Amino acid sequence: MKIEAMSERRERGAAMLERVDGASGVQVVGTLAKSFPDFATYILEYPFGDIYSRPGLGLREREIATVAALTAMGNAAPQLRVHIDAALHVGCTPQEIVETVIQMSVYAGFPAALNGLAAVQEIFTKRGISLPLAA
Amino acid sequence: MKIEAMSERRERGAAMLERVDGASGVQVVGTLAKSFPDFATYILEYPFGDIYSRPGLGLREREIATVAALTAMGNAAPQLRVHIDAALHVGCTPQEIVETVIQMSVYAGFPAALNGLAAVQEIFTKRGISLPLAA
Amino acid sequence: MKIEAMSERRERGAAMLERVDGASGVQVVGTLAKSFPDFATYILEYPFGDIYSRPGLGLREREIATVAALTAMGNAAPQLRVHIDAALHVGCTPQEIVETVIQMSVYAGFPAALNGLAAVQEIFTKRGISLPLAA
Amino acid sequence: MKIEAMSERRERGAAMLERVDGASGVQVVGTLAKSFPDFATYILEYPFGDIYSRPGLGLREREIATVAALTAMGNAAPQLRVHIDAALHVGCTPQEIVETVIQMSVYAGFPAALNGLAAVQEIFTKRGISLPLAA
Amino acid sequence: MKIEAMSERRERGAAMLERVDGASGVQVVGTLAKSFPDFATYILEYPFGDIYSRPGLGLREREIATVAALTAMGNAAPQLRVHIDAALHVGCTPQEIVETVIQMSVYAGFPAALNGLAAVQEIFTKRGISLPLAA
Amino acid sequence: MKIEAMSERRERGAAMLERVDGASGVQVVGTLAKSFPDFATYILEYPFGDIYSRPGLGLREREIATVAALTAMGNAAPQLRVHIDAALHVGCTPQEIVETVIQMSVYAGFPAALNGLAAVQEIFTKRGISLPLAA
Repeated sequence: MKIEAMSERRERGAAMLERVDGASGVQVVGTLAKSFPDFATYILEYPFGDIYSRPGLGLREREIATVAALTAMGNAAPQLRVHIDAALHVGCTPQEIVETVIQMSVYAGFPAALNGLAAVQEIFTKRGISLPLAA
Repeated sequence: MKIEAMSERRERGAAMLERVDGASGVQVVGTLAKSFPDFATYILEYPFGDIYSRPGLGLREREIATVAALTAMGNAAPQLRVHIDAALHVGCTPQEIVETVIQMSVYAGFPAALNGLAAVQEIFTKRGISLPLAA
Repeated sequence: MKIEAMSERRERGAAMLERVDGASGVQVVGTLAKSFPDFATYILEYPFGDIYSRPGLGLREREIATVAALTAMGNAAPQLRVHIDAALHVGCTPQEIVETVIQMSVYAGFPAALNGLAAVQEIFTKRGISLPLAA
Repeated sequence: MKIEAMSERRERGAAMLERVDGASGVQVVGTLAKSFPDFATYILEYPFGDIYSRPGLGLREREIATVAALTAMGNAAPQLRVHIDAALHVGCTPQEIVETVIQMSVYAGFPAALNGLAAVQEIFTKRGISLPLAA
Repeated sequence: MKIEAMSERRERGAAMLERVDGASGVQVVGTLAKSFPDFATYILEYPFGDIYSRPGLGLREREIATVAALTAMGNAAPQLRVHIDAALHVGCTPQEIVETVIQMSVYAGFPAALNGLAAVQEIFTKRGISLPLAA
Repeated sequence: MKIEAMSERRERGAAMLERVDGASGVQVVGTLAKSFPDFATYILEYPFGDIYSRPGLGLREREIATVAALTAMGNAAPQLRVHIDAALHVGCTPQEIVETVIQMSVYAGFPAALNGLAAVQEIFTKRGISLPLAA
């Protein structure tokens, strides 16, 4: 890792946040910053400036991993919705997202998958993606 | 879904298990079948015969999702090791696996990622993959 | 396990779903099927067609096990409500359900039990079961 | 431990509940007692009469521990809100509470911390504590 | 609840512990008492003296609930083994225990069920119960 | 937050790691760095350089929060042991640590507390702290 000014890292994180989540991600962090500015900065810096900016795993794969984890953990519904949106934004197909969530029935049980599909339905409806997907 | 005999589904699952996990996966399920034959059958049928056999998400992506979920949940070390092995078997690069596990520090905390990396190290050592990976 | 057509398993699952959850369970799966038809089918097939249809454990005990697990996990409120209803439907007494949930304070902590009791209260109110139960 | 009448323990618990949670805690348990009187009694007895009444750890530290645990577990939002309120009531500074929740990003991930901060914001708003806190 | 001396509750708990877990349970709590005497007392008092002593749910059902919850949570292997043993001790059939654990694949995923079955195998082997169970 | 060079943050993190965990913490991260150098750096930077270095919560309170969270989550035994050690290192009394772990029986159940006490016993034995603690 090269030595860099903190501000570089934060700017890289802000750019990555927008690339991953689009305008809605920027808005969420902006709202957070009004009440908890340091934590908003950490979110730019560590998840986006450090982790998502790393080479070696594509953004599509990163979002599949995150949707899988949040569906399986089952205790972070707001963040799951954000990352279903982000997955679409970085180019995952609707079908890839549905498959990822359904697969979690194997690893975390059917209720986790069902609640994940409820989040999928909510985001797909907002984005005008019709369900059921064509086979 | 077409109507099919159960035996088709089980055979498809057995073939998929071998494709995903190789000989070691077949052996694990074979050992399980000696004590809990019905549950061994269910594993062939549902996760492998039904879920992994679905189109719409590649096997590489399926294993990234599973490694992510099991790292994040943090309570299934034996299965995480199996799926790190499976991820390599279906063509994930060592770097993709390491990146997936490191990313879980964001969603499930640093201890989950650390314990995931311990599993990675164990499997990579067995497979002769040197760590650290070349940058 | 005998070899059977898939359709037999699905029909057995649909019948078991109705036996366990009554009309409301059938409706929930019907609604799910409109958006995610394959996953609705899996729910008929694996949990109901395979697992609940197995001999060796009564339906009352199966529902006690499920109410216990969902209360303890604490991240699947909609499914917990469905299974409190199902427990009543297969013949658990209101007291058995309350006892199961209270017992989870030992294994998963008082907040999990409290949130489980909130679900109990919601379902009991809908079904006209007065609380507190007579001692 | 000395031998004591159960009623002593219950009274000690009731007094401790009020000391820790104030009038709102007493009200919550009172409401619970209308539907589940035995469980309301257990809450007075074990958490408050036994555990919080023990010497060797201050009430401020006990509430920091509880806020940390409930934020990390992420599946008990109502109880987390009660204990953010209780932490303020026993003398934790707003900053100590925010720091405890932010620290959970390390151990349970950023979504757990974010959802914890949402609970902080809700309670702080009710209590008239302005956010962001002055640095 | 009647007013009673604490010592009554503790003795009732000790008797219930022996009834549920047999000599091995008494020994586990005895060992714990050497290092953490107060917590050993709490275990006699609350889980056994209060909860398991309540009417309204049979001991077989209580152990099915506990085996289900501990299998589903997946982070308490030593206690799961104790309760598989206890389930046998209070009269659950080996098949009822295996069914309870297998059912958790639906609610908590296949890895949780697999790890639960490993605990079952360990306890059954110690007790001379042959696997697979006769169908 | 002032703009600073990354190297400052890393050095501050390394110093904080030593202050919190002592020589053993430095060694753990050093071993990790041989296989996963980037993740070892992140541990210095984010948990120690950013979070533990923040004002507004004392190191004793930070370790109580961490011991509480890791005991409650129950899926990170190696990290719990490290932080029991760290809690002693930053000046928590043995009794404060035992109390924190026992309190988790309320929020995460008795098995979580029992497994936490097993970790306490292991670390206390290594450090020559006799159990039971004098009342």
